[in-house]
Amino acid sequence: MQLLQNKVREEGIVLSGQVLKVDSFLNHQMDPILMKEVGQEFARLFQEENINKVLTIESSGIAPGIMTALELEVPMIFARKQKSLTLREDIYVEKVYSFTKQESNDITVSKKFIHPGDRVLIIDDFLANGEAAFGLARIVEQAGAQVAGIGIVIEKAFQPGGKLLTEAGYRVESLVRIAALDNGVVTFA
Amino acid sequence: MQLLQNKVREEGIVLSGQVLKVDSFLNHQMDPILMKEVGQEFARLFQEENINKVLTIESSGIAPGIMTALELEVPMIFARKQKSLTLREDIYVEKVYSFTKQESNDITVSKKFIHPGDRVLIIDDFLANGEAAFGLARIVEQAGAQVAGIGIVIEKAFQPGGKLLTEAGYRVESLVRIAALDNGVVTFA
Repeated sequence: MQLLQNKVREEGIVLSGQVLKVDSFLNHQMDPILMKEVGQEFARLFQEENINKVLTIESSGIAPGIMTALELEVPMIFARKQKSLTLREDIYVEKVYSFTKQESNDITVSKKFIHPGDRVLIIDDFLANGEAAFGLARIVEQAGAQVAGIGIVIEKAFQPGGKLLTEAGYRVESLVRIAALDNGVVTFA
Repeated sequence: MQLLQNKVREEGIVLSGQVLKVDSFLNHQMDPILMKEVGQEFARLFQEENINKVLTIESSGIAPGIMTALELEVPMIFARKQKSLTLREDIYVEKVYSFTKQESNDITVSKKFIHPGDRVLIIDDFLANGEAAFGLARIVEQAGAQVAGIGIVIEKAFQPGGKLLTEAGYRVESLVRIAALDNGVVTFA
């Protein structure tokens, strides 16, 4: 997606060989027109997948998620992140490890909102090791529903998440794929 | 806003005299078409206010915030909530007390994204005691910018936030105002 690639090139800040900061348009300040186009692009890519729900995770997944859901005219659910929880009957819980923060969080979704037969599109802002996407996929499968696809705004393709998700049988579509962040420069895949 | 009032009546669950659960369309699962109409309504209400930024707070403010920003064609910033932070030069920090959770959180916004001369529209999903809205307003004012208005999706008008914000000189527009949650029934103001 050219518009997004331009934004990454112009406004992304390479903090290290691993970390790209995009807080001017995706993670803290958000560009709503760009988010709308991201939603339109995901809707186009997955239009044949009979999606009836979008699932994302707070907080940075919500804007691309709601724009995708708007285009597809389906509800969006966002998973919540919490420190480890006492077991509850009414929610699905999966543990997700963050390599960035070096900590595990529980991600949770109410059982009310995903059901057998649902075809769920998972949306997230970043894909690196795939921990969050796998956690969301396990929640969908716990519910007896199907993962219809995984849409990622920015994939760090030099980290293994995309490969692992594809090998696990998921269809992954990333709008921008970054091959390297070496020497302060973004190289696209 | 009639559509929103209908949703509250049909899907809202009164958990106590203080607590209304709206997780089927606003707080966990979200209705994107409703969110778009919420954004259009805020844009209409504040169209004369020369707004150049929307400020909200994670997580439930992001969807109504981004839809409002899309209509106004301005950037949206979401404040982050964190446990108390070590002081940092590059962010505005305000302490916000949550009566629901009975704890204080720091809310933070990068200094990069709000500047003197900005006219900022604050958007949030709920207004009860006004703690979050006042915290966001203090951040805008720390930055030397102006609060151009405060847009609330659901105001619990039996709690003092709306009155306190209005007395402090802010223009508050709530799309739905709830007068009482007694006996498991929502009464609109």
